[in-house]
Amino acid sequence: MANLGHGGNVKEIARKRGIEYYDIIDFSSNINPLGMSDKAKQAIVDNLKEIEKYPDITYFELKNEISEYENVDINDLILGNGAAEVLFNAVRALNPKRVLIPIPTFSEYKEAVEAINAEAKFYKTIEENNFHIKDDILDYIDNELDLIFICNPNNPTGVISDKKLLIDILKKSKKTGTSVLIDESFLDFIKEDMSMNSFIKEYSNLIIIKSLTKFFALPGMRIGYAITANNKFKNEINKITPAWNINILADLATRASLKDKKYIRKTIDYMEYQKSLLYNGLKELNNLTVYNPSVNFIFFKINSKIDLKSKLLEDKILIRSCSNYEGLDESYYRVAVKLEEENIKLIKSIKNILNIC
Amino acid sequence: MANLGHGGNVKEIARKRGIEYYDIIDFSSNINPLGMSDKAKQAIVDNLKEIEKYPDITYFELKNEISEYENVDINDLILGNGAAEVLFNAVRALNPKRVLIPIPTFSEYKEAVEAINAEAKFYKTIEENNFHIKDDILDYIDNELDLIFICNPNNPTGVISDKKLLIDILKKSKKTGTSVLIDESFLDFIKEDMSMNSFIKEYSNLIIIKSLTKFFALPGMRIGYAITANNKFKNEINKITPAWNINILADLATRASLKDKKYIRKTIDYMEYQKSLLYNGLKELNNLTVYNPSVNFIFFKINSKIDLKSKLLEDKILIRSCSNYEGLDESYYRVAVKLEEENIKLIKSIKNILNIC
Repeated sequence: MANLGHGGNVKEIARKRGIEYYDIIDFSSNINPLGMSDKAKQAIVDNLKEIEKYPDITYFELKNEISEYENVDINDLILGNGAAEVLFNAVRALNPKRVLIPIPTFSEYKEAVEAINAEAKFYKTIEENNFHIKDDILDYIDNELDLIFICNPNNPTGVISDKKLLIDILKKSKKTGTSVLIDESFLDFIKEDMSMNSFIKEYSNLIIIKSLTKFFALPGMRIGYAITANNKFKNEINKITPAWNINILADLATRASLKDKKYIRKTIDYMEYQKSLLYNGLKELNNLTVYNPSVNFIFFKINSKIDLKSKLLEDKILIRSCSNYEGLDESYYRVAVKLEEENIKLIKSIKNILNIC
Repeated sequence: MANLGHGGNVKEIARKRGIEYYDIIDFSSNINPLGMSDKAKQAIVDNLKEIEKYPDITYFELKNEISEYENVDINDLILGNGAAEVLFNAVRALNPKRVLIPIPTFSEYKEAVEAINAEAKFYKTIEENNFHIKDDILDYIDNELDLIFICNPNNPTGVISDKKLLIDILKKSKKTGTSVLIDESFLDFIKEDMSMNSFIKEYSNLIIIKSLTKFFALPGMRIGYAITANNKFKNEINKITPAWNINILADLATRASLKDKKYIRKTIDYMEYQKSLLYNGLKELNNLTVYNPSVNFIFFKINSKIDLKSKLLEDKILIRSCSNYEGLDESYYRVAVKLEEENIKLIKSIKNILNIC
């Protein structure tokens, strides 16, 4: 596979250590800790016979459900086998020569750019500015730049970019013929509507990418999509995407999940509470700089020479080392917000390690 | 999606006609009529919690099971979200300029070539030769040719290419630096071992592509793979394939299916018997030229001006018109071999239509 440095490789780590992976508490993948919606499970169990048939090649009902959820036109949706497929095919369809990626960020943007042998330039956000993108990013946008990525909120820092700045980026990019690809995969975890999806008609250079697997706890299922009003782009990406790329159980589970409004509300409320609990617990520890979290994960820095990931694995806890993110080093970590007892255990374990070392 | 002219779009047709799709007998998609293995169903039901975790990023156990089934090295396998993803990414990884496609054949080869704006040339097999590829295909292989496709058995004609001819193609192609992509997606339906997978070490220019969704009746699940010993190609395709492209339920269902030897034997035996029944039944009808079938579908020509597909839809039977295959016209059709009572109904319905028209 393209990259083995992701989070979410708990099974591989467990196999190498000779332990059962379900004995490890996995803080390295940012998945809804409440698990998937019961309605999604039921939809799968009730429809196993559907596996024996090809999915509707137009994915009409699935698109319909997503268009209601996102409040966008059904024709402005492009489905993918996970956001990763949409991302890779979007880059192929845009076929950029020069691409700007603010770092640190999700490594797959660079991988997708390298997969077509295009040139990735970096805009470096810095610690002194709490890893925020500043107005000076506008200076990087010119006629030579074909594509710019914005991960919003950003993975792993959790930074949400200001809507005004995003509009300024879209405005200038529209003039320079630059496409703007905004990844909103984690935005569902918060109450406030921070999505840019209401701007797709005004800015045809805007492409929003989204994964549903995090919020709806479906990482084993693969479901993601792009939202754009750019017809030329839609034609190009459809041309290079194989038919039937969404499996029928992902289709059914997604439809059931999107309809489960009670589960959606419960997740947002639970996350708000647990995020505060974990954030406050980590903040109290010495030697940690904990960044203000926005969604369902927390980014922090350890101000001493401890390999926290290895130490925590001794307690059967897996966290995400950010050492392989461009622009970060081995002192940075990311943890998902999980169930209350798990969050408490994480705080306690880190506290013990910091006290001993 | 890339192409809306495939078979297997029964849901779309049903929606347009205002009927329930499960009321239609679908002879247009070539799926095992016995349905999926009970063991595969059980594996899904027993492991729903797995959806909430990322699959093993190396797909170790799945690859292990496939390597035993195919009797190939685990490192010579590349997995895909259906054979279609493998196909599209294989063509991207090979990045050919000029490609040879024997026609008529499966339309996705041409789509995959067009998706990278390469040039597809056709080698036309003809009715007079029962649509077989002849030795003269060797004349098309030269230093200018980067890739040649062979669908074996060919879809929709059912023609199996002679192993000697395939080896001659591989030999000459190896000299000219031409890759040979053989699609064996339907070979499991017959007892004889006709696979070329024992030649991958000898011919590093050989790439075999295979879908498991037909034989194991998992078209809603998407699972396919490539078999090759070509390390350069493996590196290239891994670079452009997103991580976690196989969903966990496809992983689990495939492993359970491959282990279900009783189901595999039963399918092959049932298919042998029903294929004869359907072939002999169709052969007896006037005005049809029925080609000798090899696997689980039958190709035929109607020697009169009847729109057989539309007529059969009145009986709620869907067959595959081959009019949109390069090199064929509206007089050609393909039907899957299905359950005994369905096969009998098809013969009866066609007989009635031919008698009336």
